[in-house]
Amino acid sequence: MQYQASVNKFSQPLVQQLLDNADKLRLGIEKLENGCTIIDAGIKVPGGLEAGRIITEICMGGLGTATISQSPYTSNWPLTINVHASNPVLSCLGSQYAGWSLSHGKYYALGSGPARAMATKLKDGAVEPVEELYKELEYRDSAAQTALVIENDALPPVEIVEKVAAACGVSPANLTIIVTPTSSLAGGVQVVGRVLEVAMHKAHALHFPLENIIDGSGSAPICPPHPNFVKAMGRTNDAILFAGQVHLFVKGSDEAAEKLAKELPSSTSKDYGKPFADIFKAYEYDFFKVDAMLFSPASVIVTAVESGKSFRAGKLDNALLDLSFGA
Amino acid sequence: MQYQASVNKFSQPLVQQLLDNADKLRLGIEKLENGCTIIDAGIKVPGGLEAGRIITEICMGGLGTATISQSPYTSNWPLTINVHASNPVLSCLGSQYAGWSLSHGKYYALGSGPARAMATKLKDGAVEPVEELYKELEYRDSAAQTALVIENDALPPVEIVEKVAAACGVSPANLTIIVTPTSSLAGGVQVVGRVLEVAMHKAHALHFPLENIIDGSGSAPICPPHPNFVKAMGRTNDAILFAGQVHLFVKGSDEAAEKLAKELPSSTSKDYGKPFADIFKAYEYDFFKVDAMLFSPASVIVTAVESGKSFRAGKLDNALLDLSFGA
Amino acid sequence: MQYQASVNKFSQPLVQQLLDNADKLRLGIEKLENGCTIIDAGIKVPGGLEAGRIITEICMGGLGTATISQSPYTSNWPLTINVHASNPVLSCLGSQYAGWSLSHGKYYALGSGPARAMATKLKDGAVEPVEELYKELEYRDSAAQTALVIENDALPPVEIVEKVAAACGVSPANLTIIVTPTSSLAGGVQVVGRVLEVAMHKAHALHFPLENIIDGSGSAPICPPHPNFVKAMGRTNDAILFAGQVHLFVKGSDEAAEKLAKELPSSTSKDYGKPFADIFKAYEYDFFKVDAMLFSPASVIVTAVESGKSFRAGKLDNALLDLSFGA
Repeated sequence: MQYQASVNKFSQPLVQQLLDNADKLRLGIEKLENGCTIIDAGIKVPGGLEAGRIITEICMGGLGTATISQSPYTSNWPLTINVHASNPVLSCLGSQYAGWSLSHGKYYALGSGPARAMATKLKDGAVEPVEELYKELEYRDSAAQTALVIENDALPPVEIVEKVAAACGVSPANLTIIVTPTSSLAGGVQVVGRVLEVAMHKAHALHFPLENIIDGSGSAPICPPHPNFVKAMGRTNDAILFAGQVHLFVKGSDEAAEKLAKELPSSTSKDYGKPFADIFKAYEYDFFKVDAMLFSPASVIVTAVESGKSFRAGKLDNALLDLSFGA
Repeated sequence: MQYQASVNKFSQPLVQQLLDNADKLRLGIEKLENGCTIIDAGIKVPGGLEAGRIITEICMGGLGTATISQSPYTSNWPLTINVHASNPVLSCLGSQYAGWSLSHGKYYALGSGPARAMATKLKDGAVEPVEELYKELEYRDSAAQTALVIENDALPPVEIVEKVAAACGVSPANLTIIVTPTSSLAGGVQVVGRVLEVAMHKAHALHFPLENIIDGSGSAPICPPHPNFVKAMGRTNDAILFAGQVHLFVKGSDEAAEKLAKELPSSTSKDYGKPFADIFKAYEYDFFKVDAMLFSPASVIVTAVESGKSFRAGKLDNALLDLSFGA
Repeated sequence: MQYQASVNKFSQPLVQQLLDNADKLRLGIEKLENGCTIIDAGIKVPGGLEAGRIITEICMGGLGTATISQSPYTSNWPLTINVHASNPVLSCLGSQYAGWSLSHGKYYALGSGPARAMATKLKDGAVEPVEELYKELEYRDSAAQTALVIENDALPPVEIVEKVAAACGVSPANLTIIVTPTSSLAGGVQVVGRVLEVAMHKAHALHFPLENIIDGSGSAPICPPHPNFVKAMGRTNDAILFAGQVHLFVKGSDEAAEKLAKELPSSTSKDYGKPFADIFKAYEYDFFKVDAMLFSPASVIVTAVESGKSFRAGKLDNALLDLSFGA
C-alpha cells in the first residue's frame, strides 16, 4: 500500500478515551491478571450509542469519522450513522474488517480493529500476517500498544487474550480488548458503521483493484437491537443491505467503475429479498452457505475520477427494512 | 442511579472553551467582584449558533453531543440540531433540565446545567438536594468548579449569584453563570437542543421508570429568533412540539414501551394544535395553566430492547411549524 | 469590525493537524529552501474528502465547522458538506474568500484563507491591506505564523511564496501554503464548502451592510471531481448554484432582509440556467464576463432578527445538478 499510516497509533487515543470516560460511557473496565485490559461495552453494562460510535472509529484504525444523527433518508428509521475515512482501504480493510477468526474451546469470535494489522504467525519458518488480506494490502503495522474489537456476548477466555497478544508481539499489558455484544446498542452501531467497509470488502471480492479506490463515504440506519442473537445480527446486516448507501471514488476505466457499481449492491445477490435472519435460518445457521455477494450496501454511486463519470446502482428498500427492524 | 459520571467534571472543559474563545464566539465575559464569572451569550453581544451548540453540550453536563446541520426533514426549516447523550437520563434530567427556580426581587429565572446536580439546601437540619428530582435520580455531584445556564435577557443580580454558589458549596470564584436570552440565537439553539430532555422529562411525568431508559437521540429544527419574548419562547417550544423527533431505547415490557410511545408525543396533549405563543396568551401568560403533557417531541420511536420491538407515535406537523416560525 | 478574533490563531492548530497527520490524510509535505512549508493536497498525492474538510475549516480561519454526511436533500447526490461559523462575516470574507490574486509568469492563482488577513502593501508610502475588502471589514490580523490556500494544479513558484510571506510580514519559514487542485477531492470539498461564503460575498456585492449579518449556516452536495479543469470548476460552482442552501440571520429592516433574500439566489442571475462549464465556454473562458450575481446558493432563507420574520427565495434544481454532476 502506497500511503501508509499506523492504524494503531491513530486509534490508541480513542481507546484511551474509552478508558478515561468509562463512567460517562457506561463501560465496564477489567484488568486481567496478565495485564490485559478488557472493555465491556454491553454485556454487564449498558454501553450505548456514543460508545458504539467511538468503537466504530477505533475499528476504523483512527482514520475514520463516524457521526450519529437523525436523517429522513429512510421512511421510518431516522437514527443514522455516517462514516468516511481519510484512507478507506487502509481504514476499512486494514483495520475495520472482522477478519481475524479466534476460537478456544466453545468460544468463537471474529476480531476486528487495529490489532489485526500487527498480527503475525510463523509459517514454514517465516513470519507472515495472520490474515492473507494483509499480503495484498502490503501493510503491516507496528506499535507499542494495540486494541482488538470482538463482537460477542461473552468476554474472551484468557487463552484467546494471550494468543492475540503473542500474535501482535506485545505483552498482554499492552493489549486492550473491547467486547460488544451483537444485541447491544454499541454492538449494533459498530456493525452498521461498517457500511463503507462492507463495500470495500465486496469490491475486493469482485476483484476490483483496491489501489484504485481512493476515497469513499457511507451511511446506514442504526438498527434497533434485538435480544435474540440471530435477529440482532440480522438487523445489523439488513441496515446495510436494505438501506446502506455509499459513494466511492475510484481510478481506472469507466468500464471498471460501471461494472463495480452494477455488481456492488446487495440486490445483485441471489439471496437478496428477505431479512437476513430468515436467510440464515433457511441455510440452517451456516454462515458460509450465505452468498458472500449479499454483504454490501443497498445503494451505491461509483465515481470514476479519471473521466468524471458517476455510475449508480441499487436502491433503498423501505419495505424490507421495516420487515427486518419492525419484526 | 447506577451509572454515575460527574456532569461538572465533563462540562467544565466546555465552559473553559467558551472563556478561551470568547472573541471567536462573540461572547461577553464579566468577572464580578465576588469572583463569579458571567458569560453573556446574547444580551449585549451577538453570540450565535455555535455558542448555542456548545452551551447545549454544557447543559447536557458534558455527556452529550450536539451538532448543527441542514436537514430536509421539515419542508421549510432545514437548520437542525441533533443531540444524543452517553447517558441520557443523567445528562438530560441530572443536568440539562431547567429545574432550578431562582428569584430575587423582580428577577426570575430557571437554572439549568451541571450546577443543579451540586445544589443542596438544609431542610429540618438535613442536607438535601434543592430539587426533588435528584432524590429520584439518586445522584449528587461534587466538583471544585461548576456552571449554571440561565435563560434570561438580563444578567442575574448578585444575590442570585451568591445563592447559587452557596447552594453548590463553592465560592463564587468557582462558579460560572452563562446567560442566554430566549430571543438570541444561542438561546434558541440551547432550548431546541432540549428535544431529548423534554422526552425524558415527560417520560418521568408519565411515571415511566427512568432507570429503564437506556439510551436516546433526537433532533429538531432550530427556530428563527423573535424579538418578542413570548413569540421567541413559543418558537423554541414549537420547534420541539411540531417537529422534534426522538428515538428512545428502553428496558421493560412491550406494554410499557408501547404506552410510553403512545403517550409521549405532543399531539396527545389537550392543548396541542396551535402555536405555543397563542396557547400561552389564551392562558393569560400563566405558564402553570398550560398542560404539562404538551411539552414533548412531535414524533417518537420507543424500542423495547428486551423484545426488540419498536413502537412509534406522533408525527411532524409542517403546517403548524410554518405557522409558528413564519408568523 | 466589532467582534474580532484572530483567524490565524484559530486556524494554525488545524494547519498543524495537516502536518502531523500527513500520512493519514495522504498529503505531501515539502519544505522549501527558504523554509516555507508546502502542503500538496491532491497534485502528486490522493488527499481526499477528510483533507478537504479540514482545509475548509482552515479557509474559514478556524472560526467555522465543516462536516461531511449523506443527506437526502438532493435526489441523486447524497454526499454533502455542512458549514457554519461562529462569526460568518469574519470567517467567510475575512478569511475564506479567494480574494488574493497572485501571479508570476504564467502561474496565476487566487489565494484564500487566513494569510489574506495579514497581507499588506505600501501605497503612497502608507501600509494598507492588499485587498480593499479589508478596509470595509476594518480588520487586520497579526500572528507569528500564517497559512494560505491556493486552488491550483501546480505548486506555486518560489517568487509567489516570497511575495506572500513578505506581504504578511513573516519569514517564509512561518508560512504554510496548501495547494488543492480543482480536480482533486480535497479541492472540490473546499470549494463547495464555500457555500456560506458565496452568500456573504454576494450580499456584499448587493450592498447589504455586512455588520448586519449576524449568523448563518449552509450546505451543498460535494461534487464528483472531473479531470478537466473547466468541468471540475464548473461542478464545484454548480454544487452551490443548483443545490446550495443557506440560512442567514440579519439585523435591520424587513424590507432589507426581504430584498436580500429575493436577490441572493443564483436563479436571479441572467446567466442562470445551464452548467457553469457551458456558461464559461460561451464566454470564451473569460471569467470576468460571467455575471458576478450568478455566484450564490440555489436556495436561501433570510431571517430578520429584529422582527422575527423569515424570507425565502430560490430553490434546489435537481435536473440542472444532474446535468452538471452527471455529464
